[in-house]
Amino acid sequence: MILLDTIQAAHDRIRAHIHRTPVLTNQTINSLSGADIYFKPENLQKIGAFKARGGLNAVLHLSELERYHGRTLGPVTTHSSGNHAQAVAFAARQVGTTAYIVMPRTAPQVKKDAVRDYGAEIIECEPTLEAREAGVLEVIGRTGATLIHPFDDDRVIAGQATAAKELIEDVGLDQPFDVIMTPVGGGGLLSGTALITHFLSPETLVIAGEPEGAADAVLSFQSGRVEKAPYINTIADGLMTSLSERTLGYIREHVTDVLTVSDSEIVAAMRLVWERMKLVIEPSSAVPLAALLKHNERFAGQKMGIILSGGNVDLGRLPF
Amino acid sequence: MILLDTIQAAHDRIRAHIHRTPVLTNQTINSLSGADIYFKPENLQKIGAFKARGGLNAVLHLSELERYHGRTLGPVTTHSSGNHAQAVAFAARQVGTTAYIVMPRTAPQVKKDAVRDYGAEIIECEPTLEAREAGVLEVIGRTGATLIHPFDDDRVIAGQATAAKELIEDVGLDQPFDVIMTPVGGGGLLSGTALITHFLSPETLVIAGEPEGAADAVLSFQSGRVEKAPYINTIADGLMTSLSERTLGYIREHVTDVLTVSDSEIVAAMRLVWERMKLVIEPSSAVPLAALLKHNERFAGQKMGIILSGGNVDLGRLPF
Repeated sequence: MILLDTIQAAHDRIRAHIHRTPVLTNQTINSLSGADIYFKPENLQKIGAFKARGGLNAVLHLSELERYHGRTLGPVTTHSSGNHAQAVAFAARQVGTTAYIVMPRTAPQVKKDAVRDYGAEIIECEPTLEAREAGVLEVIGRTGATLIHPFDDDRVIAGQATAAKELIEDVGLDQPFDVIMTPVGGGGLLSGTALITHFLSPETLVIAGEPEGAADAVLSFQSGRVEKAPYINTIADGLMTSLSERTLGYIREHVTDVLTVSDSEIVAAMRLVWERMKLVIEPSSAVPLAALLKHNERFAGQKMGIILSGGNVDLGRLPF
Repeated sequence: MILLDTIQAAHDRIRAHIHRTPVLTNQTINSLSGADIYFKPENLQKIGAFKARGGLNAVLHLSELERYHGRTLGPVTTHSSGNHAQAVAFAARQVGTTAYIVMPRTAPQVKKDAVRDYGAEIIECEPTLEAREAGVLEVIGRTGATLIHPFDDDRVIAGQATAAKELIEDVGLDQPFDVIMTPVGGGGLLSGTALITHFLSPETLVIAGEPEGAADAVLSFQSGRVEKAPYINTIADGLMTSLSERTLGYIREHVTDVLTVSDSEIVAAMRLVWERMKLVIEPSSAVPLAALLKHNERFAGQKMGIILSGGNVDLGRLPF
């Protein structure tokens, strides 16, 4: 159960380790959309993505509990080919413990290098969910490591909530947002955002953007059961995961809508942010803006918050 | 003559029209360089470059003077293929007057579009300095427009000084910077930075970075006369201009050194900022960081400020 206190404690716990990212506005994108948009650029966060927040909160919290019992935190582990791998590696280094990261052998070298730069040990596996989960179980059996799940974990969700918390504190208290938008993959960022918005700014709606090529959340949101996407084929490589029961629960309770967008809409929004805001963002980050632009009549004149989730993209393989 | 009051007044004048850009740090680049670097990302500024500051201060100041005499400001003009064109167009729109921008017909369409988006009128000319100057004289003769020079103007220099002013106010008062670095082209940003640093943080050194392929400032700095570059051939397209007597005077008085870097060093530093800081910067912006990395033993352990000058780059023509 996540309360306002849980998120406040998470924020206090991670504050010294993260960047308080700024809030950015862009006149051109406002004119284009007809809305009044405040961007929270988490691509400027440590490790280049909001996931630093959740990974840190989980690892620091575990470390505190161990210290309370007079022990030090043992190793941690996760499987990820993306930003959560870096987040756990980074968090483990902050508390001086070992991270074992199970990564598919097909993961880009640049992502493996980043994880290794944070001092983590990489265990390569075949690029299937089964092999990744088996890899983590093997690590746990061998080392006694604690699993840090990328989103199905209240400590992780409470950490992700701190991005929207800062956004609301910085520009959403005196005049509340009409809507705050995030992308949705496994639902950790969306759940955390929906919870803190409910606590701090209950009149604000929370709406997610999701790729058409990984459209599980929109189905689950409608049916109330965890559904699989009809097919997986999207440039937004950070959003291919399905929701868990936990994140679906938070989302059903506190989220107003899930809007889907095509890959070409995602690339157009991504290019707009690169060209006009001068920010390197990954495709997943552009999904909420793409949804806002697609439904611009719905949001006309409204005060919008958008969390730009990350900027870890291969400069040698840009879609434009 | 530019005093602290001049720069303070410039800041008060432009404040409502510009972004107060944040200050960003990056652990990876600190580790790589051995220095403690605070970046001022003026690529996130209005029009995507610090030049918005100088253009605004000049145009707003002119407008105030006219108003004092009971008149309204007539048209303004400049010649530029780059960021100053957008700055003057943007500033003119803020005060509701017309801007005539003389641009070489070879300027990229995206830059012409940006200038036109700000409501300015473009006069195309041949891509030579003579044709550009003739074009401006023609505009002045025909319309009575006031010239806003890109750097040889104390109002422009006082405006550019506000970037370093914010950087010092935000992180350089309690513990002063050892060094603040900027790129140098015509010398407007460097002059303004050197002046405000002299006023607010006199123990801080100001050092410029310059491309080897446009190395006029380093020669002028040494000889005390305005020199031409031995040759012009650099990816840093914003830095091809030579100093004026005015900027050379400020620079000789308040700048400690000018360090040159090769195009490959510029591209490597640019890529580092894109990959690690997730910022879209243009080649000119990367020149000071390239100089710092080249001379990293000189700056080891020092508190450094770097102004990232702009982010107006053609995404279709990246050097990596």
